Amino acid sequence: MAIDTISYSNGRVKLIDQTKLPNKLTYIYCSNLESLIAAIKRLSVRGAPALGVAAGFGVLLCAERYKGKSRSLFDKHIYSVCAKIASSRPTAVNLFNALGCMKDVLVCNNGKNVKDIKKLLKAEAIRILEEDKRVCRIMGELGEKLIKNNANVLTICNAGALATADFGTALGVFYQAKKKKKKFKVYACETRPLLQGARLTAWELLHEKIDTTLICDSMAASLMKEGKVDAVFTGADRIASNGDSANKIGTYNLAVLAKYHKIPFYIVAPKTTFDLNISTGKDIVIEQRHKTEVTFFRQVRTAPKNVKVYNPAFDVTDAKLITAIITEFGIIYSPTKRKIAKILKVN
Amino acid sequence: MAIDTISYSNGRVKLIDQTKLPNKLTYIYCSNLESLIAAIKRLSVRGAPALGVAAGFGVLLCAERYKGKSRSLFDKHIYSVCAKIASSRPTAVNLFNALGCMKDVLVCNNGKNVKDIKKLLKAEAIRILEEDKRVCRIMGELGEKLIKNNANVLTICNAGALATADFGTALGVFYQAKKKKKKFKVYACETRPLLQGARLTAWELLHEKIDTTLICDSMAASLMKEGKVDAVFTGADRIASNGDSANKIGTYNLAVLAKYHKIPFYIVAPKTTFDLNISTGKDIVIEQRHKTEVTFFRQVRTAPKNVKVYNPAFDVTDAKLITAIITEFGIIYSPTKRKIAKILKVN
Repeated sequence: MAIDTISYSNGRVKLIDQTKLPNKLTYIYCSNLESLIAAIKRLSVRGAPALGVAAGFGVLLCAERYKGKSRSLFDKHIYSVCAKIASSRPTAVNLFNALGCMKDVLVCNNGKNVKDIKKLLKAEAIRILEEDKRVCRIMGELGEKLIKNNANVLTICNAGALATADFGTALGVFYQAKKKKKKFKVYACETRPLLQGARLTAWELLHEKIDTTLICDSMAASLMKEGKVDAVFTGADRIASNGDSANKIGTYNLAVLAKYHKIPFYIVAPKTTFDLNISTGKDIVIEQRHKTEVTFFRQVRTAPKNVKVYNPAFDVTDAKLITAIITEFGIIYSPTKRKIAKILKVN
Repeated sequence: MAIDTISYSNGRVKLIDQTKLPNKLTYIYCSNLESLIAAIKRLSVRGAPALGVAAGFGVLLCAERYKGKSRSLFDKHIYSVCAKIASSRPTAVNLFNALGCMKDVLVCNNGKNVKDIKKLLKAEAIRILEEDKRVCRIMGELGEKLIKNNANVLTICNAGALATADFGTALGVFYQAKKKKKKFKVYACETRPLLQGARLTAWELLHEKIDTTLICDSMAASLMKEGKVDAVFTGADRIASNGDSANKIGTYNLAVLAKYHKIPFYIVAPKTTFDLNISTGKDIVIEQRHKTEVTFFRQVRTAPKNVKVYNPAFDVTDAKLITAIITEFGIIYSPTKRKIAKILKVN
């Protein structure tokens, strides 16, 4: 992919400012934690895997800027950094998993001095990024087999290069299908309120010369009824141990529609998106976002003052609605707690 | 209602410019056919019943402005006016029904001179408006019995005072429930792409002091899953003789979701919305609208250039998904061709 979503060099995290797409491709350089957290909160960087990478880089940034020599004070500082990053967005578990990996480096290398531990943290942050690229490619290869020639596929939000280090989860499947020279069309749900589908998915799919048609989220049912959708592919932000999956608001809607229209519904997500500490989707914390995301467009008011707003960033799709979850370790059809544990725990 | 959606005086049709709501309450005065048709096309006036009233007034306007004395030339002129109005929007059958009523006046009063036929056309246009008010009130009274105390109800688009002469179809039910001092909450789907729910429904419900919460269309599934929706009420633009109902895009989506969550799904529509000439929803012509409705917001581009767009203005809900259709002649539960014919043909 030629899309440089997130990278790290010379003590700075470089991010595409995704709030400016599709009109401008601009970058943000974060040289301190505050600017990185602000970028995460306003969704300049978003997408569960990319948030994991950003979390690793956030820790690295603060580690490299740390001036002291005391290992215990250094560790204290890094733990406080992790707590700040953890409070930026609550739902995507990759973010917490990445912070866990960074903290594990501290725990497992208790005897190292500050200079050496900084090197190990850097190696770990880069490993998280490289691992994301690697698993996205594997999932793409596994998933593309599910796309028949001349298929029409539907997706929501952006589970692509812009949501990961460089390849994407759901969109990674499409990129691999394209590489295999399959013919297919993608319908992209625009994804209200923040239009990640219109702004980001349409942008990156067209960038890769994939046949793309934009729809409003409410049009998916009509499209399915017309027989124009052969499969739905989405990413996920957190998957409970029974397979219940949190993803962008509107995903559960698509899953119910797919079930009704007998269309397969696939989730593409790496091991780092699973949260085996929670038993069902009921335990997933859903981020509620500000009402102005719904009542304003840029500076233009689109709804009357004082109207109440319901604005959850995510919804939870029950495992029973999911045809299969595509992971880097294989495809889990009709996901259950037992099947998920089996495939993830041995790997 | 204190909302003056459409009226006629001194040779002009007065309309609320609904494209300016909720930010400004402004009126358009159409003194010729071209300006009225332009207002219909850009949705300054919209909603199936209001389009019927507008069609009647459009004919009246041209009748009153006609200078000649020849009855046959007058009739020819009126038929050509009707053809122009008929080509403005294809789906709402009320528009065609109203034109049919106006043409019937000509046919049934063949012997009258131009001066007298103008008076009869005026009376007919006013009858269409008054009839709309009357039937909306009756449907409201019938429908409000379906709202339990402390209920949460969901609606899409605007089937309210702004879609009719003054009371509304689906929202008319809510206004009657309010009048009966029932406690209930309304969730309004914002209704992409043109946000009639956010701009118009939220505006008029708050105007009537009804507890209103705005949601993005994709959030309805999540809301239903949380148990926060007790019933769905929508209007319709055209109902086939078997009960299949065309309404704003997204309505079919809600009907599938309601079925899955075992929530009653009601359509509120007068006899004039039925098209007994067509047997099923497959025969309903669905208006495809311009792609810029989806790819631009005001002057701001929200999707990349060259992306294809699917933008049907309506979808069709199968009769089997509809719990009941509320008409001015009674409530048709589990609508079928036989039940619809029975209730409409005797009335």
